Amino acid sequence: MATFTHIDSSSRPTMVDVSDKAVTKRTATAQTRVRFPAEVAEALRSQQFNTPKGPVFQTAIIAGTMAAKRTHDLIPFCHPLGIEKCTMAIEMDGDDAVVRCTVSVHHKTGVEMEALTGASVAALTIYDMCKALSHDILIAETRLVEKRGGKSDVG
Amino acid sequence: MATFTHIDSSSRPTMVDVSDKAVTKRTATAQTRVRFPAEVAEALRSQQFNTPKGPVFQTAIIAGTMAAKRTHDLIPFCHPLGIEKCTMAIEMDGDDAVVRCTVSVHHKTGVEMEALTGASVAALTIYDMCKALSHDILIAETRLVEKRGGKSDVG
Amino acid sequence: MATFTHIDSSSRPTMVDVSDKAVTKRTATAQTRVRFPAEVAEALRSQQFNTPKGPVFQTAIIAGTMAAKRTHDLIPFCHPLGIEKCTMAIEMDGDDAVVRCTVSVHHKTGVEMEALTGASVAALTIYDMCKALSHDILIAETRLVEKRGGKSDVG
Amino acid sequence: MATFTHIDSSSRPTMVDVSDKAVTKRTATAQTRVRFPAEVAEALRSQQFNTPKGPVFQTAIIAGTMAAKRTHDLIPFCHPLGIEKCTMAIEMDGDDAVVRCTVSVHHKTGVEMEALTGASVAALTIYDMCKALSHDILIAETRLVEKRGGKSDVG
Amino acid sequence: MATFTHIDSSSRPTMVDVSDKAVTKRTATAQTRVRFPAEVAEALRSQQFNTPKGPVFQTAIIAGTMAAKRTHDLIPFCHPLGIEKCTMAIEMDGDDAVVRCTVSVHHKTGVEMEALTGASVAALTIYDMCKALSHDILIAETRLVEKRGGKSDVG
Amino acid sequence: MATFTHIDSSSRPTMVDVSDKAVTKRTATAQTRVRFPAEVAEALRSQQFNTPKGPVFQTAIIAGTMAAKRTHDLIPFCHPLGIEKCTMAIEMDGDDAVVRCTVSVHHKTGVEMEALTGASVAALTIYDMCKALSHDILIAETRLVEKRGGKSDVG
Repeated sequence: MATFTHIDSSSRPTMVDVSDKAVTKRTATAQTRVRFPAEVAEALRSQQFNTPKGPVFQTAIIAGTMAAKRTHDLIPFCHPLGIEKCTMAIEMDGDDAVVRCTVSVHHKTGVEMEALTGASVAALTIYDMCKALSHDILIAETRLVEKRGGKSDVG
Repeated sequence: MATFTHIDSSSRPTMVDVSDKAVTKRTATAQTRVRFPAEVAEALRSQQFNTPKGPVFQTAIIAGTMAAKRTHDLIPFCHPLGIEKCTMAIEMDGDDAVVRCTVSVHHKTGVEMEALTGASVAALTIYDMCKALSHDILIAETRLVEKRGGKSDVG
Repeated sequence: MATFTHIDSSSRPTMVDVSDKAVTKRTATAQTRVRFPAEVAEALRSQQFNTPKGPVFQTAIIAGTMAAKRTHDLIPFCHPLGIEKCTMAIEMDGDDAVVRCTVSVHHKTGVEMEALTGASVAALTIYDMCKALSHDILIAETRLVEKRGGKSDVG
Repeated sequence: MATFTHIDSSSRPTMVDVSDKAVTKRTATAQTRVRFPAEVAEALRSQQFNTPKGPVFQTAIIAGTMAAKRTHDLIPFCHPLGIEKCTMAIEMDGDDAVVRCTVSVHHKTGVEMEALTGASVAALTIYDMCKALSHDILIAETRLVEKRGGKSDVG
Repeated sequence: MATFTHIDSSSRPTMVDVSDKAVTKRTATAQTRVRFPAEVAEALRSQQFNTPKGPVFQTAIIAGTMAAKRTHDLIPFCHPLGIEKCTMAIEMDGDDAVVRCTVSVHHKTGVEMEALTGASVAALTIYDMCKALSHDILIAETRLVEKRGGKSDVG
Repeated sequence: MATFTHIDSSSRPTMVDVSDKAVTKRTATAQTRVRFPAEVAEALRSQQFNTPKGPVFQTAIIAGTMAAKRTHDLIPFCHPLGIEKCTMAIEMDGDDAVVRCTVSVHHKTGVEMEALTGASVAALTIYDMCKALSHDILIAETRLVEKRGGKSDVG
């Protein structure tokens, strides 16, 4: 069974102390998937993914990038850090928009939450830009794809 | 085919003008699902969902509520509004944690993005609280469950 | 013994639902007190409360006012609200700087947390402006002085 | 008499230039004290410090930690810095809840304001969680307990 | 000579009390002008105003809209308010990009600062998107164009 | 003709990757100019630049400094960075208030946007403090004056 290193008996919430960890280059990539109903996907394609509120994917990339920078302001025990790279790509896969967000930093802690937050807020923005067409849009399968530079690599 | 009312030919992004809409009571409920690998779910259950970073669900509810209040700061064309209610519930369904977020306001525009943002940030926080156990945690199926008080109801 | 109306058995944190409450004019005044060591108070008086970082009280009033506006961003279950008045006054009482902050709004919930937050951040700013002189400065007795317009008045 | 190194004659407010200072490990601990009226303390004890709004101390620790990260956004001339550790503890001492906040960073400037802000916002959150019971709760004696790593140590 | 209604003798900074003012529909339009050196304007035109960082005007409109919503967080004595409309348009006039921002709200105070802040941050974003080409770009003539719904109209 | 190094064919917006750049000391100075109508300038001079809302220039310096710290939160593709110095000076030049903002940091990217944002928000604050006198106040000629420490120097 998976176990945590230690559990404080009083369940006191706390930020992990990273002050004595080494600064290394950390990179993480997260992915999410916005599932459009078929007729919504068709409508969006026929309009080159522009809606009355503007270009869907460009707006989502900007919102996702700004959210990635603010991750520590949203997730209580994420350390504040100055991300050095945030790349977002959105591509259609059938009727799904697949969002990928890669974040890098030289720091004492990883950036998987930054990548996940960037991807999630981009997906929420896609929803917002398209919800006048349908409320049956789903945000599916947000997950970490890759992680480099910490104690253990992923992906 | 679904169609938008109008598309500005220049794809100029823009916030919808709600200034002449009626103030009504708007409510929306969103749901998301955090999928734990079986051994992670078991470890969490055996520790009553406490981790070295603190109680998972209470921390997630607080982060989600704070994010719901800040939705307009994250999603570019969401109107700022003062939510009057934000209720979050998290329950286990098999190895999944199901997050529900209900938001209400009396205003000229709906609160579905607030409910979706609250649920999403709660899910991201659950991920952050548990990621020391595994990076194979997934955030699955974020969607709108119900919406009342606008032009059209959902759910 | 004082009692709460109800306690949710699972200790689930939650924002109070104010959506069906009446909008009334709410006012609250909070007070705090920054206690300077005698020689610090003397140094500040001799410089008309200017330090190398600038005018102490004016800077504190600006910081406190900005913080009062952002109370709901700091205190997890405070409702977001658009304060209509925020008056701050700082006066010396012996070697203490007494900060008073009065906030008003027409809304469904009171503004005592806004007044307390405004006063507290003003006091923290006074500390920051003067800490080059001494770290023995104390922030003492932050409390609600008056509250009008809700279910029960205070003061 | 205590004196400042220099006073700009025009009282122009300004952030201290730390660009040429050395990066060292800085730590600071601040403490505050929330004074409950006796019957409020008793009610809280009988409910294991849970209220209808949720668990008092865990909510306060989360809010305080998030505020410590945002100190430079609240206090005008505090430098932005990425704190590496933020530990909060809350314990009862008679009818008082004593909040301690310790912050660490490797940086060119100290973290006493971060520790004081974290403790203060935790105290304000305790007030907010309990104010349905009484408005006679006081926040008393917020002060710096210890400071290490700068020009001069405290405590 | 123009005069203020009253000056507090102690120069105490303060937010204006609008709590007893009437709610009316307020609208304001601000304009700014980004002046490109001729060869920069030519380069931008030849690339349809896209740069390696993305589409210049769409990015600026999104940033300006988000900043307009946050005006009260930037300007110390601006009242927080929930804007109901924010329209931004950017057009070339010779080698200048002319940014117009119109904001509306039903509230007790005007929205000229929101319009000016939206236009200014859009202009700063244009600068940021294009500065790899030249640092001789100027932001010129930011001003209020029109204001309706308050004590006195402008424009 | 000025050219960009490369244009992504799909106009995908993106933050520049600075993760492999060298940390050097970066400094930038920006300037803006608030143009008062003659009678407004005269009124302000006769009141030593105090208005009913408080001291104009000190309030502007505080707001500008706080905004400089938050530049990356306003401009979508600015990297978050912890500025180490932010000096603001405001002086009258005829009927114009000239705002200068100098920012320094040791980092992988420059601080010209921080200096420009600090100066712009200071100018907006001056406008807000004085707009009760006239809405004919202009913000004119915001520009970069000097830049040191990057690939190429300016000024």
